[in-house]
Amino acid sequence: MKKKDLRTKIFEVVSKNGGHLSSNLGVVEATLALLDVFDPRVDDIIWDVGHQAYAYKILTGRLDKIRTIRRKGGLSGFTSPEESSCDRFKSGHASVSISASLGLAKSRLILGKKGKVVVFIGDGAMTGGLAYEGLNNCVDVSNLVIILNDNSMSISKNVGGISDYLSKIRVHGAYINTKNITKSILDKTPFFGSNLKAFLSNFNLNMRKLLISGSTLFENLGLVYYGPIDGHDILEMSKVFRVAKSIDKPVLIHIITQKGKGYELAEKDPSKFHGVSGDYLKKASNCSAVSSFSSVFGNCLCELSRKNKRVYAITAAMSDGTGLAQFSREFPDRFSDVGIAESHAVTFAGGLSAGGMIPVFAVYSTFLQRTFDQLVHDVSMQNLKMVLCIDRAGLVGEDGESHQGIFDVSILNSVPNVVCYSPSYFDEVKFYLNLAIECEESRIIAIRYPKGTELFKPPFISDGCRDFDIYGTNRSTMVVTYGRLFSFASRIFCDFPERFSLMKLNKIIPLDDSYINASCSYNRIIFFEESYEKGSVSERFAYMLLKNQFKGKFENICINGFIKHATVEEQLHDCGLDLEAMLKIINSDYI
Amino acid sequence: MKKKDLRTKIFEVVSKNGGHLSSNLGVVEATLALLDVFDPRVDDIIWDVGHQAYAYKILTGRLDKIRTIRRKGGLSGFTSPEESSCDRFKSGHASVSISASLGLAKSRLILGKKGKVVVFIGDGAMTGGLAYEGLNNCVDVSNLVIILNDNSMSISKNVGGISDYLSKIRVHGAYINTKNITKSILDKTPFFGSNLKAFLSNFNLNMRKLLISGSTLFENLGLVYYGPIDGHDILEMSKVFRVAKSIDKPVLIHIITQKGKGYELAEKDPSKFHGVSGDYLKKASNCSAVSSFSSVFGNCLCELSRKNKRVYAITAAMSDGTGLAQFSREFPDRFSDVGIAESHAVTFAGGLSAGGMIPVFAVYSTFLQRTFDQLVHDVSMQNLKMVLCIDRAGLVGEDGESHQGIFDVSILNSVPNVVCYSPSYFDEVKFYLNLAIECEESRIIAIRYPKGTELFKPPFISDGCRDFDIYGTNRSTMVVTYGRLFSFASRIFCDFPERFSLMKLNKIIPLDDSYINASCSYNRIIFFEESYEKGSVSERFAYMLLKNQFKGKFENICINGFIKHATVEEQLHDCGLDLEAMLKIINSDYI
Repeated sequence: MKKKDLRTKIFEVVSKNGGHLSSNLGVVEATLALLDVFDPRVDDIIWDVGHQAYAYKILTGRLDKIRTIRRKGGLSGFTSPEESSCDRFKSGHASVSISASLGLAKSRLILGKKGKVVVFIGDGAMTGGLAYEGLNNCVDVSNLVIILNDNSMSISKNVGGISDYLSKIRVHGAYINTKNITKSILDKTPFFGSNLKAFLSNFNLNMRKLLISGSTLFENLGLVYYGPIDGHDILEMSKVFRVAKSIDKPVLIHIITQKGKGYELAEKDPSKFHGVSGDYLKKASNCSAVSSFSSVFGNCLCELSRKNKRVYAITAAMSDGTGLAQFSREFPDRFSDVGIAESHAVTFAGGLSAGGMIPVFAVYSTFLQRTFDQLVHDVSMQNLKMVLCIDRAGLVGEDGESHQGIFDVSILNSVPNVVCYSPSYFDEVKFYLNLAIECEESRIIAIRYPKGTELFKPPFISDGCRDFDIYGTNRSTMVVTYGRLFSFASRIFCDFPERFSLMKLNKIIPLDDSYINASCSYNRIIFFEESYEKGSVSERFAYMLLKNQFKGKFENICINGFIKHATVEEQLHDCGLDLEAMLKIINSDYI
Repeated sequence: MKKKDLRTKIFEVVSKNGGHLSSNLGVVEATLALLDVFDPRVDDIIWDVGHQAYAYKILTGRLDKIRTIRRKGGLSGFTSPEESSCDRFKSGHASVSISASLGLAKSRLILGKKGKVVVFIGDGAMTGGLAYEGLNNCVDVSNLVIILNDNSMSISKNVGGISDYLSKIRVHGAYINTKNITKSILDKTPFFGSNLKAFLSNFNLNMRKLLISGSTLFENLGLVYYGPIDGHDILEMSKVFRVAKSIDKPVLIHIITQKGKGYELAEKDPSKFHGVSGDYLKKASNCSAVSSFSSVFGNCLCELSRKNKRVYAITAAMSDGTGLAQFSREFPDRFSDVGIAESHAVTFAGGLSAGGMIPVFAVYSTFLQRTFDQLVHDVSMQNLKMVLCIDRAGLVGEDGESHQGIFDVSILNSVPNVVCYSPSYFDEVKFYLNLAIECEESRIIAIRYPKGTELFKPPFISDGCRDFDIYGTNRSTMVVTYGRLFSFASRIFCDFPERFSLMKLNKIIPLDDSYINASCSYNRIIFFEESYEKGSVSERFAYMLLKNQFKGKFENICINGFIKHATVEEQLHDCGLDLEAMLKIINSDYI
């Protein structure tokens, strides 16, 4: 398949199914060069994040299925060994690839398997500490090739020292010259000749001298460095990949690509097209802002920060996604995009708090998984205050199992000194954000809200937010829920108000005796929860019920494991958490 | 106080109370220079790990209390704002300091506070990804000074690219010359004159040229770099610190120290003296190996690995502490010390497993906190097998709140596809390690065991390990426990066998219906657990009891928050988990 056809196919598929357009358009040539030199049946090819592997999927036997990507039962939007043996590791989270590849590479050396392990990683992922820990352990791994895809962007504009450093290499002027010299050297190279080693040591030396004075950061870490190379020149890349393939040292090849290459609109504004929803492209030119929990949070934070000069907002490479873009423009001195570095974000927040600021870290639920120790050690144990705004909490749809926001509750339940609110509506987000900012207590105050917009709001909803509310009394059954699921439960309650009482939780961590006292008299409690079952609020609720000698029946419907890509509606349905499933359970008589 | 007196004091205190001898002896001069130039009442001084701050504590008003260090109610072995305003951040875990300091530094800039934020960080901590994420965010922070204390050791011998890189700088030959030149330049410097800026830019340039050709790794990340400097030359350091203090850029000063400086035995074998127990030094010259869970694990793993060639062991800078030293010598090709990089260790294990190996990661419970996302995303979600050997599980004594092993159970309870065993005795460790290695299932198999040695073993203990055992039937009360606490519970059971049945859990995750079926008929269940209450096994146990309509009384005694330094015995007592407290609760009638 030719590069033009690949681009057309990718554009066609992403237009329909959503996904990562710019990143995939940008690596078409690199993928072709990669597969020209390396063979996924012989070599291990590992994609970091894996969102940019569409061309790779098409070229490794999945052309006929590519139209199913990100749809229920179809191809994953990331790499997955379950769909092809050409995918050696599931991907999704950033900065994983080098560490995982080192494991594969060491295994090959020990088991005597030939071939290389090839990592394809973006410059954005290089801002993550895990990537650095991986790089720091490469020294003696002779069968590793790292291709650093430098498009000067991760999701938002890339940030930090490593990014500046890459820019310096890029603009060093040696770029074009090097390219020609590389060509001329390579053209003369007897690739499998006996002089290869001698040539290569000179090659390396020459390249280095020509590129930048002294050694590069990567060479300092013990890698052989080639670059920068034009990531849209297939011939050029193939040649350098062949060199890398033939030497017995860990190699890093630095290629420069243009995100969105070949699609004008995406080239101009790649951050908007990093991840797009299906059918989004149609309205690309004139899309209007849809209210989402993210935007409500972002606007509200701006408002509060105009009054309170101590508010400091942090994102880990997700300014747009978390709704902080406006904040970053209005309060540049009180805003940090730290790169894909969630661990740092939390410890940094700890420092800000110790320094007298009110840090607000907006983060996707799935990426909060990277901060357990920092929450415990660098905030909670320090008796410091921070505000955590957890976006994409609950099921997230098409991004699938790596991205579901189903572990944040378990995490926050296990960290001391945490309060967590789970609003169902925009107004409640504003209420709790205000409460969190103004709170005088030294603790972690978390607010979690789902992807997208608010759903059904019943007419009877109370004004003002209490820790919990109970609607309807004198029933024998109580339904307990929080967050997005309250919309479904209250919809059912509107239709069948006589069947059950409805408890809406706003504060989900910690639970205290008032929750239990209000629940103990029911014969049957059904708890619906869009979180992983172990460590869930309902588990805690049951534990407290038992300790208070509750004698009734307790059921909880939660998420029981990793949930694959599909629409959110399909996922909720499959988990027994949509309106229909909830109604069925409520109507069942002690199933 | 003079350096000789400081060393004597430190030696005296560590000999009695235990603690980190070599590291503290090594930084005496650096601490003196630091306090010569910076003022903890004006500047923020942040110690990474903080185990090396004894001289600092003595010099900042805590001389009279230093003899209480690491003892109950006494000074902490790490920095703590609770004991002095000169300590700005609690420490304990490595690689935290740069991120925390960036928060403090930004706060100062925003709030218009003068002074610098000074970080003191070892080269070992530089192997951690969090330190790199911090370094990557320094570019625009003008009031930050990082002192990199390079003793070419972290706890074990330092490893990886960054370590090799620092060695290269050290041995570059320019060291001594530079020193002289630095002196001669600095001697002529008008520190507060108008030519300062011009001087400094030249100074920087000259230093760079003289030190190593081209730019250093740290300069590549946007920092001003000075070094390497003799970390035992107070005058020399003071001068460079003054330069750093006077410029408005983030600065990294690279000092070289000798761990254990001034104490012959420690200088020769600093790894043995990194952390020492009280009264240990007396027998330093002729100490014999005491059997500990760590050594039993290490020996058993060696044995199993002789038969099974696929076993691969990983440590994060804790070869000695986790009992892997012998393994590392016997199987160097199947062993990695990855540096202080626990996140990488787990992802690397995922890669090894995907490559056909059986990875065994031995890690202290407290450091497992850094691996939540890697366990979820890089092992569990991948359907891969790995073995986790969790040392120092439960209370650890004098290292105090940052080091307690009380969250691993909550973590493992929240990660899908985990099995966790909690043996009480050496034989059980061997049994479960063998089981884990031979297990054909693709899941995380964890074995957790406490610091130190096995305790009381009752004569009635069953041969062979089952998921759980119940001793004594036809009682109305059942005591449930696992791990170290079983020794206390069984001791009580031996004395009062008529009062209760005793359930010993060996497999603590997951629990299945067999546990509950065996428990449901009791009127009273008392669960003792040396873990944080939220996310605990007893919480899960209660939840399952309720779902199975248990009608009796349930009590659990767990750990309710951060536990400060004291002996393990004192800590167990304070948590209501020693023999005496357990007996009291068992004898109480439905308290």
